[in-house]
Amino acid sequence: MDEFALINAFFKSISPHRKDVILGIGDDGACLEVPSGKTLVVSTDTLVSGVHFLSSWNPFDIAYRSIMVNVSDIIAMGAQPCWISLALTLPEFDQSWLFNFAQGLKSALEVYDLALIGGDTTKGLLSITITVHGLVDRNHELRRSGAKAGDEIFLSGEIGAAALAISLMDTPIPQKDRNIIMEKLLKPVPQLEFINYLYPHATAAIDISDGLAADLNHICQASKVGALLDLSKIPVHPLVYKYKKESACEFAMQGGDDYVLCFTVAELAKVSFLQLIHQANLSCYAVGKIQEKLGLFGQYSKNKILPLVPIGYRHF
Amino acid sequence: MDEFALINAFFKSISPHRKDVILGIGDDGACLEVPSGKTLVVSTDTLVSGVHFLSSWNPFDIAYRSIMVNVSDIIAMGAQPCWISLALTLPEFDQSWLFNFAQGLKSALEVYDLALIGGDTTKGLLSITITVHGLVDRNHELRRSGAKAGDEIFLSGEIGAAALAISLMDTPIPQKDRNIIMEKLLKPVPQLEFINYLYPHATAAIDISDGLAADLNHICQASKVGALLDLSKIPVHPLVYKYKKESACEFAMQGGDDYVLCFTVAELAKVSFLQLIHQANLSCYAVGKIQEKLGLFGQYSKNKILPLVPIGYRHF
Repeated sequence: MDEFALINAFFKSISPHRKDVILGIGDDGACLEVPSGKTLVVSTDTLVSGVHFLSSWNPFDIAYRSIMVNVSDIIAMGAQPCWISLALTLPEFDQSWLFNFAQGLKSALEVYDLALIGGDTTKGLLSITITVHGLVDRNHELRRSGAKAGDEIFLSGEIGAAALAISLMDTPIPQKDRNIIMEKLLKPVPQLEFINYLYPHATAAIDISDGLAADLNHICQASKVGALLDLSKIPVHPLVYKYKKESACEFAMQGGDDYVLCFTVAELAKVSFLQLIHQANLSCYAVGKIQEKLGLFGQYSKNKILPLVPIGYRHF
Repeated sequence: MDEFALINAFFKSISPHRKDVILGIGDDGACLEVPSGKTLVVSTDTLVSGVHFLSSWNPFDIAYRSIMVNVSDIIAMGAQPCWISLALTLPEFDQSWLFNFAQGLKSALEVYDLALIGGDTTKGLLSITITVHGLVDRNHELRRSGAKAGDEIFLSGEIGAAALAISLMDTPIPQKDRNIIMEKLLKPVPQLEFINYLYPHATAAIDISDGLAADLNHICQASKVGALLDLSKIPVHPLVYKYKKESACEFAMQGGDDYVLCFTVAELAKVSFLQLIHQANLSCYAVGKIQEKLGLFGQYSKNKILPLVPIGYRHF
């Protein structure tokens, strides 16, 4: 058995067992059961060392975050994440690195009861490609393209802390603050609880990976609408105010890696949606309105509306 | 729109249209219809520049081969390949390279009516990770683990030419020969026609990617059996005899990249299986027998049986 066969054997043991995995790791392909009435949802993301993470990070964190980033896409489709394929490219066979990586993987898989169903291990510069498979009731998937003028725009959580962690990586700050924002960067928490309430209320959804401005812009372009954000209502993480002061809101809107949901709800459905959300002990933030006028705008004060430029995702 | 968004938009247009793709490239995930009664089969392979292909190759060939290599795994499960996710890591934005790569992709997708459903484009050293999704009737999948003592071992085509192409890459040989073996390396032809006849006759199957010895060994290990290959019956490509002379058979068995099928058929099912295959105008080669005695053996002559060592896949 060569090193890479060992890795595969090693990874096999960390996967939660799911009844819908008919055949897992170890054959030419995995075999999976998709119940009738369900639609399969598939998403793929590559994370490259030095671009999406630093090789100096704890391999536990690299693995954990890689899973979460991918799961977030499936949840943004309103789907239940189920199965993961992992393609891992490694510069060398470092047993302690691999052990920690596998522990991070295991820990993330357990959060959502995901099965690792296969993948590939190759030699090269460190990078991780994950394909995640989810299931959603037929015709209940949430696309980017359904937003309509008049819809309210919601965020499912605070934004800006992960981007702040990247921006302050080489700046000396109190360890307590560092811990809080690094946790936001390394341990994003895709909000699976929401998928039970988004359909049929939400008209469009996306996860905030590239920043609110860039991602809301994706919804606007796919839906052929515009958006007006009320800057006083953006749930900016408190530490962003502490370190970015006056530009906090802009920083949070242009930052990325938040992995909270951004979704739109029709005006008429808003009240019943919010009732459900509160009954479920969840919270979300109304941050603006979809409008017919194309483009992205920010309401800075009662009479001050300015265009917002979606700069999007810039990493290291 | 940045360069990578352009690439994604560009790739969107090359995909064949399939009715079971409810939502393709461009959202957080693709949505796919899996008919009831079908099992989903998923396989992932990464191809790294300098390991699995050379960056000097025509990008058309790199793309084409990457698809075929992955499709081959799905066919080896007895399944119909349907959908492809492509994670492409590129060192730079080279429009002419990308155009040719996309043409190779398009050409390969069309062969099997595969839809490109999504993926990711990142910056880094050239590598390609493909996840291919297929469908097979429930409980009809072909595993590696079903071979039984007494089963006949079959190959669906000649072997050795692709490995010969790699081994002679820096050796001057006549262009006509070079073309023949490079075609075998660059344009493997996974044999989809076979999936209609393997079930219920075949007891185990695998595709020859690492070499007959290594891959048959995978079947043996998964099935807890051994195998005896009749070396006089191995369908070695004629050019392997020309360039590797006395060691031709060993070379072909240890070479890789053939992407023909290796499968086992119970003694009792053999006659009816071969009738079906011949009626379908297909051909295959009986090359040996599964046996209880563990390990891989070669029958060199009537009284000469020696162990075979599965060395497996060694590339550049």
